[in-house]
Amino acid sequence: MRLPKKVTIKEVGPRDGLQNEKKIISTAEKIAWIDSLSEIGLSYIEVSSFVHPKWIPQLADAEEVLKKIKRKHDITYAALVPNLKGLERALKVNIDEVNIFMSASESHNRNNINKSIEETYPVLEEVIKEAKGAGKTVRGYVSTVIACPYEGSISPEQVKKIADRLFTMGIDELSLGDTIGVGVPNQVERLLEELLPYFAVDKLAMHFHDTRGTALANIVKSLEMGVTIFDSAIGGLGGCPYAKGASGNVATEDLLYLLQQMGVETGVDFHEALRSAQLIENILGKELKSRQMEILRAEGEGEN
Amino acid sequence: MRLPKKVTIKEVGPRDGLQNEKKIISTAEKIAWIDSLSEIGLSYIEVSSFVHPKWIPQLADAEEVLKKIKRKHDITYAALVPNLKGLERALKVNIDEVNIFMSASESHNRNNINKSIEETYPVLEEVIKEAKGAGKTVRGYVSTVIACPYEGSISPEQVKKIADRLFTMGIDELSLGDTIGVGVPNQVERLLEELLPYFAVDKLAMHFHDTRGTALANIVKSLEMGVTIFDSAIGGLGGCPYAKGASGNVATEDLLYLLQQMGVETGVDFHEALRSAQLIENILGKELKSRQMEILRAEGEGEN
Repeated sequence: MRLPKKVTIKEVGPRDGLQNEKKIISTAEKIAWIDSLSEIGLSYIEVSSFVHPKWIPQLADAEEVLKKIKRKHDITYAALVPNLKGLERALKVNIDEVNIFMSASESHNRNNINKSIEETYPVLEEVIKEAKGAGKTVRGYVSTVIACPYEGSISPEQVKKIADRLFTMGIDELSLGDTIGVGVPNQVERLLEELLPYFAVDKLAMHFHDTRGTALANIVKSLEMGVTIFDSAIGGLGGCPYAKGASGNVATEDLLYLLQQMGVETGVDFHEALRSAQLIENILGKELKSRQMEILRAEGEGEN
Repeated sequence: MRLPKKVTIKEVGPRDGLQNEKKIISTAEKIAWIDSLSEIGLSYIEVSSFVHPKWIPQLADAEEVLKKIKRKHDITYAALVPNLKGLERALKVNIDEVNIFMSASESHNRNNINKSIEETYPVLEEVIKEAKGAGKTVRGYVSTVIACPYEGSISPEQVKKIADRLFTMGIDELSLGDTIGVGVPNQVERLLEELLPYFAVDKLAMHFHDTRGTALANIVKSLEMGVTIFDSAIGGLGGCPYAKGASGNVATEDLLYLLQQMGVETGVDFHEALRSAQLIENILGKELKSRQMEILRAEGEGEN
């Protein structure tokens, strides 16, 4: 099996994870958690979202979080930015990277952003232009790249078309999201086969949700195809907005276990990651669902 | 991705699943559950164990279960048999296939069977000879094929040596177990690369535990290498004897989802499998941990 020697894990727990958590946690707690994430060897943390607070009350304190976290110079602190208003807020607190987003599915995009895909492009184009003008890098997210909860299958050609538009507009990297966690490895392969002839593999990230337990299998297939950037969330935070209680983002610690055992370097410390997972578990006051956290709890009970 | 057109799922829930469940369930409940499994399209069910009842009280009713289940002619009903005494019991209730077992790890074998690996062979040889003499097929299990909880890594060469002995003694099929669920795809690949030059791929089954969430990834790699027989347990029953509370066998319904989405036939009905999972969930009175059961519960809550 041909595997990359080293991959980059992009921690999205503070944003993609917390935005789906009902219990509102305090700004101080978020900061404490993000500061702990800064100590585990990550090079990238998506810390919040500058979407209007009315849409995601959990992340209404984005400015304060960005201002108060202890930033390390070798970590990129990024946040989601939906439009120029959000960008203005993000630039004021000197975000390192601006993350824009849209969906590969027309109906999911309408449902999420309240615009058609065509209507979304000019908004993103403005944000990208302004962000680049301010000296920032820009990451694009395309969600529902395998399937949409309303439309079903999304074609790799559709994803390619969108990727093309976004790279042409100037994004530096594109994260491809299986937002509802339905994908399986041969679908991931077909998607990457469509994209890799056109886009450099080191500009593509894979973003899997583990709702059906297929995330690690999809990551292995992506690794075999040369992908070296993966999004994940400590504790598998995030849930699934379409099946409350089901699993969310692939858990950083489960991904770390897989990569470590396969001999792929990440720079992230597995045990420190577990400690950070325990911190946010305590803050949220609920058991996190990653397999590694299950094992940790099981071992803990065994000791009692 | 090259995938087999069709695979066989061997349901081990009533044996490998229940043997790790603390709550003793009644014989009538077991029979009801196994009868439900006979209706979902499976061709193979491991229904119990003829290990001495003192070791596995949960399965002490093996004879009665075998006698009273409604057998279908196109399903193989198998059970674990440790020695000639167990075989005698199994033959009396006309078991279809005799499943013998040992470990690839010296210390795990000692711990489980109370014999060295060399001391185990003659016992198994007797059982195989008698079982074949009685017209039965014999399935071998080798556990800890990737790693052992006491010794760590197990070499593919060690597994090959054992496979060689067992096939020479006359077993019809060998199931390779990652008993503690630590394996990752490149380890599975190395193991199969060692075995496939010597043994026909249709005589090898893979038996993964999903303790660390890697089972489906390991199954995908096995499929790519031509393996067409997989063990699984409804509801992911089984737990991990070395980390109580952690996940057990890969869940039949999670495996079914993966295979169905990848276009691999199994003959098993996904929705019927979920109904059978709900039945044993009710009997056990605890939430089963498979991703598909989580989704089912989540959707149920969504409806309320």
